[in-house]
Amino acid sequence: MKAVVISVGDELLAGEVADSNAARISARLTEEGVEVTSRHTVGDRLPDLTAALQAAVPRADIIVISGGLGPTPADLTRQALAAAAGKPLIRDENATLKLREYFAARGRIPAESNFPQCEVPEGAVLIENTCGTAPGIFLEWNKSLIFALPGPPAEMREMLERAVIPRVRERVKKEGGGKRKTRVLRLAGIGESNAAEALGNLIRLEGDSLVGIYASTGEVRIRLSSRGAGAGERLTALETEVRKRLGKHVYGTDDETLEAVVGKLLRERKATLALAESCTGGLIASRITDIPGSSDYFAAGIVAYANEAKIRFLGVPAGIIREDGSVSEECARAMAEGARARSGADFALAVTGIAGPGGAKSAPEKPVGLVYIAVADFSGTVCEKHFWPGTRDQFKQRVSQLALDLLRRRLIRIAHRA
Amino acid sequence: MKAVVISVGDELLAGEVADSNAARISARLTEEGVEVTSRHTVGDRLPDLTAALQAAVPRADIIVISGGLGPTPADLTRQALAAAAGKPLIRDENATLKLREYFAARGRIPAESNFPQCEVPEGAVLIENTCGTAPGIFLEWNKSLIFALPGPPAEMREMLERAVIPRVRERVKKEGGGKRKTRVLRLAGIGESNAAEALGNLIRLEGDSLVGIYASTGEVRIRLSSRGAGAGERLTALETEVRKRLGKHVYGTDDETLEAVVGKLLRERKATLALAESCTGGLIASRITDIPGSSDYFAAGIVAYANEAKIRFLGVPAGIIREDGSVSEECARAMAEGARARSGADFALAVTGIAGPGGAKSAPEKPVGLVYIAVADFSGTVCEKHFWPGTRDQFKQRVSQLALDLLRRRLIRIAHRA
Repeated sequence: MKAVVISVGDELLAGEVADSNAARISARLTEEGVEVTSRHTVGDRLPDLTAALQAAVPRADIIVISGGLGPTPADLTRQALAAAAGKPLIRDENATLKLREYFAARGRIPAESNFPQCEVPEGAVLIENTCGTAPGIFLEWNKSLIFALPGPPAEMREMLERAVIPRVRERVKKEGGGKRKTRVLRLAGIGESNAAEALGNLIRLEGDSLVGIYASTGEVRIRLSSRGAGAGERLTALETEVRKRLGKHVYGTDDETLEAVVGKLLRERKATLALAESCTGGLIASRITDIPGSSDYFAAGIVAYANEAKIRFLGVPAGIIREDGSVSEECARAMAEGARARSGADFALAVTGIAGPGGAKSAPEKPVGLVYIAVADFSGTVCEKHFWPGTRDQFKQRVSQLALDLLRRRLIRIAHRA
Repeated sequence: MKAVVISVGDELLAGEVADSNAARISARLTEEGVEVTSRHTVGDRLPDLTAALQAAVPRADIIVISGGLGPTPADLTRQALAAAAGKPLIRDENATLKLREYFAARGRIPAESNFPQCEVPEGAVLIENTCGTAPGIFLEWNKSLIFALPGPPAEMREMLERAVIPRVRERVKKEGGGKRKTRVLRLAGIGESNAAEALGNLIRLEGDSLVGIYASTGEVRIRLSSRGAGAGERLTALETEVRKRLGKHVYGTDDETLEAVVGKLLRERKATLALAESCTGGLIASRITDIPGSSDYFAAGIVAYANEAKIRFLGVPAGIIREDGSVSEECARAMAEGARARSGADFALAVTGIAGPGGAKSAPEKPVGLVYIAVADFSGTVCEKHFWPGTRDQFKQRVSQLALDLLRRRLIRIAHRA
């Protein structure tokens, strides 16, 4: 079962909005065991949309279009479906009635321009829109199932679940296609090329089971998938093999973030956390507090950008800053220990480094990209030195990732506290 | 000048990540006066990628590909370019050297799998990657300019600006294409429908000058564009008219963020800033420190999530928390005044509210979405109350926007200090 996803709209091609519909439709079809083989985005022009549809039909069992169903002259999905399938457009009287009711319920009268929304290519079926005015369209043509959904994401999502997924599921079942199961392993503290090397022949698998590897700033993701009978067992076997090779770097699975994993570990240990951030400027605190319920374990965060703040709020001795500098192992340790003592938290994580670009702090022996990360707990203080030059955004993101991973490794050393 | 944008990756087709690269590339090409006529997303399969390239070349002056340049066997953009253009792949010795240097600078040795990244189709040019290991590729073929950029967004963006846009600009100039001039006005403290109402007939303009209105969490953007002779003058006239209607809400233009505007105002006034954050959990500090050079004016930030932290680090009287609660005007004022006094900063911004979902803090009279924002400076303290229920992410983002906007309004009241 193969699918093509088509997005329609000039504002997408101008890059003014991100195409969240295409990602959502792709994700849901993939979960149902359908392979999305390509996506296409076209503007509000009839020939382009018609051509995209005609190119997709011979290649796809399922085609999902989003956008171009609204009331303006720039909405051309209905016409393109009719043109591609060689059918006339016919007004649906039941839909016309529903449209009048929708407006009446809101004390309004539909504009003349709303009524073309009630037209469908002959042989197609209108899909009711329960949270907007533009109905969707369902058409079976040359054995392909074609769905046209409205562009506003909330309307699209509701219609996708109610009218598309059940028909897709039925077709997948009829064709005997097995649902594809997937599992994503998330890694920190290792680069993409080293992870790929450790996986070796695994990433050359073909057929029912696949292993993919993806990277973003400070993170590598390994995507395992399998379909057909025994997919679950094959997935478990693959995961075991990957963990054997890379287990110590795996911090979570599927949608788990490092901040969620750290939060869970803190909660299990009934431990609290304080943060002392210099170069990450509050990003670690913001990530920690993205997790609902983090107020249960997050005691306090100090963003001590200025040296004066390190002294005042964290009690870093002025002598350390004078002699070792604010970007030094000594300072990182003093920040972590100061944050722990002053907040009364069980764990304290501190980072100090040089984000750049340039700036007064950098020097030949203290280049942009240098960072020290320290964790203080009841057993003492550990400190790591890293060097990762990059843009300011990359540096903040990567250092927050390295820091949360060090904290994670310190937390898993310690058994649950009574 | 027409362009096609191609995104590569199974991860995109499975809907596991949003395709932010395609939106960014589209937006930048549009700004340079190039019309993006279609976008295509293909998986990690050589025939699909080669076919997409071959289909694009006769239709586009410019083709930008992102993804598929990494070190794994699933990275096939190099091979697809070579196959589509009918050229062999050749190793670039200079790039090989640069790769070794990149790893050496980080105290590491490249894996064997990294070296194929240094191969290019004969006649193509490698584009240096200044913030990652995978170089880009530039190829002129049948009069089309083809650029292949790495998938990680930070690397893609840097390379897009440095190596793609200048070549595109040169070609646009040579072809005599009229650049579309655009100007974006950024607004805070007003919703999309109210802004649209104030603009009235302006957003119905057609032809050479266009006015678009876009919204995201805590922000409305008004996009003005014009092309052809006199575009600059028409744009200025449009901007004047929009500012007449909505000027007090306009905080910046084009790419200016609220944190950049606030930073500029602080710098001009030679003033320093302290932050006391509860419900935004460090997001405001992180936004302030996203600006290079913010260490010049950012004194310190306290993320006082727990009541204990508000007392210890900010000196909020325990009586206020006991009697008025931690989400109250009294507490917000005490947090701002405490942060200002303890940090020695000129301005202090404080937020305290209920992000939700649920949580011990909420109550009938203190619902999720309630927030108090205070600014303390030499003239005293002001406090605003807002109510914006939403998801946790939306709440943090919107409150950080409201808070920075209040600070901006306080700053513009005050003339430059001598």
